[in-house]
Amino acid sequence: MKQFLTELEEAADRVTVALDALLPRADGPEARLASAMRYAALGPGKRVRPFLALQAGRLIGAEERALLRISCAIECIHSYSLIHDDLPCMDDDDLRRGRPTVHIAYDEATAVLAGDALQAVAFEILAEPDTHPNGYVRSLLVGELARAAGARGMVGGQALDMYLTEEGSADIGLITRTQRMKTGALIAFSVSAPVILTEAGKEARTALEGFAHDLGLIYQIVDDILDAEGSTEELGKTAGKDERQGKATFVSILGIEGARDRARRLAAQAKEHLAMFGREAHMLETAVDYVLQRRA
Amino acid sequence: MKQFLTELEEAADRVTVALDALLPRADGPEARLASAMRYAALGPGKRVRPFLALQAGRLIGAEERALLRISCAIECIHSYSLIHDDLPCMDDDDLRRGRPTVHIAYDEATAVLAGDALQAVAFEILAEPDTHPNGYVRSLLVGELARAAGARGMVGGQALDMYLTEEGSADIGLITRTQRMKTGALIAFSVSAPVILTEAGKEARTALEGFAHDLGLIYQIVDDILDAEGSTEELGKTAGKDERQGKATFVSILGIEGARDRARRLAAQAKEHLAMFGREAHMLETAVDYVLQRRA
Repeated sequence: MKQFLTELEEAADRVTVALDALLPRADGPEARLASAMRYAALGPGKRVRPFLALQAGRLIGAEERALLRISCAIECIHSYSLIHDDLPCMDDDDLRRGRPTVHIAYDEATAVLAGDALQAVAFEILAEPDTHPNGYVRSLLVGELARAAGARGMVGGQALDMYLTEEGSADIGLITRTQRMKTGALIAFSVSAPVILTEAGKEARTALEGFAHDLGLIYQIVDDILDAEGSTEELGKTAGKDERQGKATFVSILGIEGARDRARRLAAQAKEHLAMFGREAHMLETAVDYVLQRRA
Repeated sequence: MKQFLTELEEAADRVTVALDALLPRADGPEARLASAMRYAALGPGKRVRPFLALQAGRLIGAEERALLRISCAIECIHSYSLIHDDLPCMDDDDLRRGRPTVHIAYDEATAVLAGDALQAVAFEILAEPDTHPNGYVRSLLVGELARAAGARGMVGGQALDMYLTEEGSADIGLITRTQRMKTGALIAFSVSAPVILTEAGKEARTALEGFAHDLGLIYQIVDDILDAEGSTEELGKTAGKDERQGKATFVSILGIEGARDRARRLAAQAKEHLAMFGREAHMLETAVDYVLQRRA
């Protein structure tokens, strides 16, 4: 786990440096917009998704520079989704990663626009020749990210999540579907996008997608557990919100112990998917434990 | 002008039919999101940008199917920007194209998400092989649209526009820059993207870009004049807002007559850019008159 944490931190630093160079400078009359984009995308964060992309890519021999740019695009999409999720009309949250959210640190209109611009940057990064010399590969990456981020992926999941809050009741099937879309789609893209870069076969792709699917669900289940058990200080974001909002979650349906049990079983399953890669998959295996044990 | 209006309407219909097939169906638990996307993108609208793309493309012999898909992508970006512009934290508008805006017809959170998902769909459409058999061409289209729509284009212009409202004072240079980004960038993409599809030379591209630049400015100047002179009923959106918000516009700086004069001179210049295409450019020339004379 120690080596894992070192690698995680190293990956986060590399992505932050690369993103810093890719995002617009905060100068000129539109400095406020660029500054808000940078505040959101370059601030503290574990950068788990980029780490997964880098590790999955190494496993199948993908080129580092391409992986780094894909990681930056993923982080832009992730950051934009957090900005919009935190808006008063959505989750209405003042705190994110221990700092004021973008609409608090700037203003609501700038938050909407900074999110919009970060989404555009993600596709701009993928489309540029620096990502991959082959235009066909670039257009595949764009298409997959657009699907993962859109109405049938992340944004659709966010909408479902909101309706779960409004309805207050849902079965485990709907919650699973919601979270597969909301957090799962982008995590799945992180792990499976590298396959587009290489000649890795269908088997590797299926294995990585299965792994990503399970990991995404674990991530969300642990999120629900932390929201129920953690403190705001520990989390760096407001705790206890799900129950106050009367929201259907894995915890509200399965109970804390049931949710923990589900996460543990998914963790075993996620690791099984990696079996074909042998020892090489050690980092991704540890990522499962990390996500399972995280306290924030 | 009569033939022009017929062609404009025909283009609008074709784009609406194509978009209807490309947007997610409004069924399943996330129906509300898809329904809001459709409400915004398939509702009434003149579809001027798609018309420009189709006409510019014909001028240089671009393939119709590719033009139609590019038009759909443009309309998705345009629709998403209108949804977000209308939000309470932005322009706070209840009325658009004579109908309740998305956050009124649905709710604010759905409006944010429908805009986000429409942006993703735009890039998904461009990235798919149906747009063009060559992946390199597709990735070029994605990159150009992302730049036109992002922080240095449409979204950046929208941010500047907001700061113009807050400051209440600005010189004509800043207003021109703002509008070049806010409305100009997407209009420029509409006219110049077809060049990517063909072997048309640098000269044709420069001519079309010059034309698009002038047309974009005319569009915005006329918008400012209509806001100052038109009625809410005529416009299908709230009139007189610029003055009430103390916003710096072409009209507040140049006066109504000065703004009209500026638009007329830009119209002559726009037509000059088309000279190299001869009679073939008749429809685009008429588009200039149409934009200059529009009452809504």
